Amino acid sequence: MRRLLSSAGQTLAEVGEGWVLNYVISRLVKPKYALLEPGDDAAAFQHHGTAVVSTDMLVAETDVPQGMTWRQIGSKAIVAVVSDLAAKGAGPRYMLINLGLRPDMKTYEFVELWSGLESACSSYGASIIGGDTNECSVPIISVFGIGTAGRLMSRRGARPGDVLATTGLFGKTAAGLRALLNGWVDETPQSLIESVVAPHARLREGLALAATGAVTSCIDSSDGLAASLYQLSAVNDVGFEITSPPIDPEARRFAEEHGLEVLELVLYGGEEYELLFTVGSDGVAEASRALQSVGGTFTPIGTVTRGRGVSLVYEGRRMKVEPRGWQHFRRKRP
Amino acid sequence: MRRLLSSAGQTLAEVGEGWVLNYVISRLVKPKYALLEPGDDAAAFQHHGTAVVSTDMLVAETDVPQGMTWRQIGSKAIVAVVSDLAAKGAGPRYMLINLGLRPDMKTYEFVELWSGLESACSSYGASIIGGDTNECSVPIISVFGIGTAGRLMSRRGARPGDVLATTGLFGKTAAGLRALLNGWVDETPQSLIESVVAPHARLREGLALAATGAVTSCIDSSDGLAASLYQLSAVNDVGFEITSPPIDPEARRFAEEHGLEVLELVLYGGEEYELLFTVGSDGVAEASRALQSVGGTFTPIGTVTRGRGVSLVYEGRRMKVEPRGWQHFRRKRP
Repeated sequence: MRRLLSSAGQTLAEVGEGWVLNYVISRLVKPKYALLEPGDDAAAFQHHGTAVVSTDMLVAETDVPQGMTWRQIGSKAIVAVVSDLAAKGAGPRYMLINLGLRPDMKTYEFVELWSGLESACSSYGASIIGGDTNECSVPIISVFGIGTAGRLMSRRGARPGDVLATTGLFGKTAAGLRALLNGWVDETPQSLIESVVAPHARLREGLALAATGAVTSCIDSSDGLAASLYQLSAVNDVGFEITSPPIDPEARRFAEEHGLEVLELVLYGGEEYELLFTVGSDGVAEASRALQSVGGTFTPIGTVTRGRGVSLVYEGRRMKVEPRGWQHFRRKRP
Repeated sequence: MRRLLSSAGQTLAEVGEGWVLNYVISRLVKPKYALLEPGDDAAAFQHHGTAVVSTDMLVAETDVPQGMTWRQIGSKAIVAVVSDLAAKGAGPRYMLINLGLRPDMKTYEFVELWSGLESACSSYGASIIGGDTNECSVPIISVFGIGTAGRLMSRRGARPGDVLATTGLFGKTAAGLRALLNGWVDETPQSLIESVVAPHARLREGLALAATGAVTSCIDSSDGLAASLYQLSAVNDVGFEITSPPIDPEARRFAEEHGLEVLELVLYGGEEYELLFTVGSDGVAEASRALQSVGGTFTPIGTVTRGRGVSLVYEGRRMKVEPRGWQHFRRKRP
């Protein structure tokens, strides 16, 4: 601790990788069933049953709007993986973290980043058991999560006639991101900004939904509502009709104030981390009860139809939802 | 395939992330026991027994000397993780790959990178079951491996009096890297260059050693011989005396030709991917036999001593080995 304090204002280049590794290894959790010690070449544990693994890479230059703290960046990297696991009905257990860090990063920034990773893991019941640190001119956080599941929820299984539902409303992150990119932070509701910089994963909701066995397909909405629905559409060879678009009221107000189309925010945003799922009509009550039992909200938004494609009915008009969202490599940021 | 050919000269920016994801998902392996399909939010499988997980991040700007092909880069990223697993006695089963790629990367380069990842996985018995692709101005390959083990080998367990041994000789990678960085490729033996651009992991050796139960501690030497020994020294509260330095003859010749100190190449290089292990004197014959049975070589180099620190006897002189190797964040590249 003394060493940490005395070096708080130094850069990683000054303290070197040894300092970083010592810090990380001293903070790694040795879970109850771990068979190797923190700092070994690998981590090992006993596992019996269904293992669910997912991964996400956060690249600071494209995925992090200015103004996010290192703690928030760390937390968001974990949330992305927890959300994937939650969408399959899995609870995260172990996380491995690969970091690419700039040599001019201050050690106190590194400690802040690590505390964000750590506190997010701990709030979702996971332990950081290993990883790798590297030098990189662009900060990178690559997270691997290992979870356990009872009943799995797959992307595949939606049937025409099923109800399409979500765990919440959409549009906040697209609004919040626009506010951050355009410098409208002061006049924008904090909840819109927080949806971008401090998101949450729907873990309790995913576990509760999976336990019902009523869900016919499930996906997380991190690619955006429209893009996620098109993925479900393709894999299940079905379509969707949205009859009650899940418009967040603050996103609606934000759109009105800034002359934006609210459906643009709702459909084509991304990183919402809501779960998007289908359930047979005989399972609606059970799914709704399951979500309520964990403090969540069952939000039916439409139905599964025959034939591919996604359409939407809004203010009496029917329109086609476009198969687009945020794509890496192409320059289409709002 | 038609699509691939017609787009072979295009960049990722031109074809977009959809193309990349389609390509990757179409190549993902659905292992026999997989419970979710390739392309889902997560991968799931049944696992019963000891799971061993490890991860490594390869950053093109610091970890890849010029002249490596994309196929070699992909392969090397896999080798680093397989080597970690092998050092614990685990065989790799599943790999998840996070890629950070430049928008101006050509699609044929991407396909080459992927084929390197894929063929290395397949040669070590692993399947790529998931991952994430991102845009990044610095190419990044972050690999996460999941393996299975019978008997584990830990870093901890070396006892004074044990024999210290390796699976091979050292110095080739430090020589090869110097040749690459200084433009001496034409006059340098191909085997030295290949040790850098096309390394192999000692998987068969690790599995065979673990099965004996005779190994008291094991670590892979990817941080360099000296740095790895100092790690073993610290965790076991023992020291090492190297009496037969594992000097590769081609590295020795390279050092002589270029006026370099051969021990500098042998001790302070890195990325050798040899296994470094200790074994009680009653286990030497068994460990040696085990290595020979898989085509490997038992290479005893010294003994475990009381008290920390690493010393070396060479040409009749005893010297202290320094606790250094390659450190990220600090500017000390050869």
